[in-house]
Amino acid sequence: MSLKFGHKIEIHAPGTVANLVCGFDILGFCLHEPCDIMELTLTDSGTVVIEPDPVYHLPTKPEDNVAGMPLLAIIEDHKEHKIGFHLKITKNIKPGSGIGSSAASAAGAVVGANHLLGHIFSKEELVQYAMLGEKVATGVKHADNIAPCIYGGITLIRSIAPLDIIPLASPELYVTIVHPQIEVKTSDARAILKKQIELKTAIKQWGNIAGLVAGILQKDYQLIGRSLEDYIIEPVRSILIPKFDEVKAKAKIAGALGGGISGSGPSIFMLSDHLETAKKIELSMQEIYDEINLSRHTYVTTINNEGVKIISSE
Amino acid sequence: MSLKFGHKIEIHAPGTVANLVCGFDILGFCLHEPCDIMELTLTDSGTVVIEPDPVYHLPTKPEDNVAGMPLLAIIEDHKEHKIGFHLKITKNIKPGSGIGSSAASAAGAVVGANHLLGHIFSKEELVQYAMLGEKVATGVKHADNIAPCIYGGITLIRSIAPLDIIPLASPELYVTIVHPQIEVKTSDARAILKKQIELKTAIKQWGNIAGLVAGILQKDYQLIGRSLEDYIIEPVRSILIPKFDEVKAKAKIAGALGGGISGSGPSIFMLSDHLETAKKIELSMQEIYDEINLSRHTYVTTINNEGVKIISSE
Repeated sequence: MSLKFGHKIEIHAPGTVANLVCGFDILGFCLHEPCDIMELTLTDSGTVVIEPDPVYHLPTKPEDNVAGMPLLAIIEDHKEHKIGFHLKITKNIKPGSGIGSSAASAAGAVVGANHLLGHIFSKEELVQYAMLGEKVATGVKHADNIAPCIYGGITLIRSIAPLDIIPLASPELYVTIVHPQIEVKTSDARAILKKQIELKTAIKQWGNIAGLVAGILQKDYQLIGRSLEDYIIEPVRSILIPKFDEVKAKAKIAGALGGGISGSGPSIFMLSDHLETAKKIELSMQEIYDEINLSRHTYVTTINNEGVKIISSE
Repeated sequence: MSLKFGHKIEIHAPGTVANLVCGFDILGFCLHEPCDIMELTLTDSGTVVIEPDPVYHLPTKPEDNVAGMPLLAIIEDHKEHKIGFHLKITKNIKPGSGIGSSAASAAGAVVGANHLLGHIFSKEELVQYAMLGEKVATGVKHADNIAPCIYGGITLIRSIAPLDIIPLASPELYVTIVHPQIEVKTSDARAILKKQIELKTAIKQWGNIAGLVAGILQKDYQLIGRSLEDYIIEPVRSILIPKFDEVKAKAKIAGALGGGISGSGPSIFMLSDHLETAKKIELSMQEIYDEINLSRHTYVTTINNEGVKIISSE
C-alpha cells in the first residue's frame, strides 16, 4: 500500500432509489441527482475527523456518523499503517428523504478511501464496509441503496447473506422524483408492514418481479411498465405519504411507465422513456402538492450508470 | 378460412416442466423428451371424435378429454363453418407424471387445429383455448405448462388475468428428469401448501426469482445455479416424493446447477450445462431408486425452443 498523506479528493456521492416497486429489498438504482459532494483527505491521525455540517447538524463523532463508521472499520482493518481520514460532506440529499442520503455518505466515504489507499478493495468489499454506515443509520446492515450507489445502474441484491449483487444492464430511463417535505421514519415504515402475506399475492408479486427483470434486460419499456405493480408493500406504506395515489395516477396519465415509493418514502419516483414525459410528470407532481400547500422538492434525472465518482484529486 | 376436409397432420406435443424451483406458478420450460405423437384430421362432423387410448384409457368423450375440450371450443367459435376433428393420441408422457401430460395433449390439439384452419390464431389465443383442457384435468385454467409447450423455450407467465406470457431466451441447458412411479395428485400437492407465508421468506424467494431470470437472460450458469432455491413450495411438497432430498443432493454432487420438483411432482428435474453432467445425474438418480426397488423412468434431454411441432401433413 503506497500512502500519500495529505492526498485530498473530491467525491460525487449520488442518491439512490431502493425498493423498486415490486422489488422490495432486492432492486434499486442510482441517480444523477440529487448528489452529495464530499472532500476526503488521507491523514496519519489514526482516526476519522468529520467537519461539522452547518445545515443538518449530523453527528461528527465518527462512531455515530454513517460515513465515519465505515472509515473507522477500514482504519481498524489496516492498523499496521496508522492511516486516518479528514472528511467534509456537503449534503444535497436531505436525510430522511428516502433517496439514499445515508447510503450516499457511506458509499462515498468507502469509494473515496479506496481511491486514497490505491484501489485495494473489490466493489463487494466496499459494499460490506459501507453497510456498517447503514447500520448506524437504521440499526440494520442493508445494501439496497449502498449497492446501486457503488455499482451504479440498476442492481439486484439476490441475497444479503452471503452477499450476492448482480448489476442489471438498463435501458435509458428518465426518473422524476418528488420529495414532499414530511418525515417518514424508516423504522415506522418497516413496523407497519405485515409479517405474513398470502401465497397467492406473493405469486402475483413474483410474476411482476420476474417481468421487471426481464423488461430491464430485454429493454422492453412496455413490459417494465406492466410489471411496476406492488401488491404487498405499497398498499400499506403509501398511507404514510400524502396524495400518493393521486401522484401515481396523474404521473401515469402524463405518460409514466410506473413508479412508487422511493426507499421507505416519503419521496415518490416515476420512470419514463422520454425527457419530455419526465418533465410533464414533474409538473403534475408540483401541482398536486402546491394545491395543498405542502413544500416539495422535485428532480428530473436519469439512471446513473457510474455510481460514486472521484471528480478531483490533489 | 380455406378448409381442406380430410387434411391430416402428425404433431409432436412435448412434455414441459412447470414451477421452475423458485418460480412457482410463473416459470416453466419445454422439453424435447418425453413427447406425445398426435394425429389430427379436419372433418366436417361438427364435433370431435377421439380414438380410444389402449394404454391409459383416457376419456374419449370430448367434453371430458383435455385435448377434446379445446377443440370443441374452437368448433363452437367457428360454427358458421361446420368443422370437426378426428384425433388419435399416442401418449408417451404418462398422465400424473408432473411433466405436463395434459398440457401436451391440449397444446398439441390447438396448435394442430390452428395449422388445419390456416393459422388463424395468435399464440396467446392458442394458450387461451388450451387452458380449457387444463381446466378439464385439474379444475383450474392454468398456463404453466401450456405456455412453454406452445411457445417453446423458457416462458414467464407474468400474469394469468390478463394473460401476459414472456418468452425468455435461454442459454443451452441440459435437463435430467426422473419420474419415480408413484402417484402425486395435483390437488393433493396444492392442498398441502400453506396459504400464508412470511414476508421475509417471500423476499428471499423473490431475490432468487430475479436472480434466475437475470441468470437465464445473461446466460450466467453460476447465477442460475445460485438462484435455483425454493424456500416456500419445495420444503412442503418434497415430503410427498420419496428420496427427494437425496436425489437433489447427489445431483448437485454430480455437477447439477440445481433443480427441483417438476410441476407438482412426482418427477424431479435437474439442470446442467454439459451433456456428460446430465448423464452422471441420471445415473445417480437411477441408483437411488434402484436401491429401494422403486420403478422409475429417466430422461436426459435439452430445452426445446420450438414447442409443439407439425411433423407431417397429408
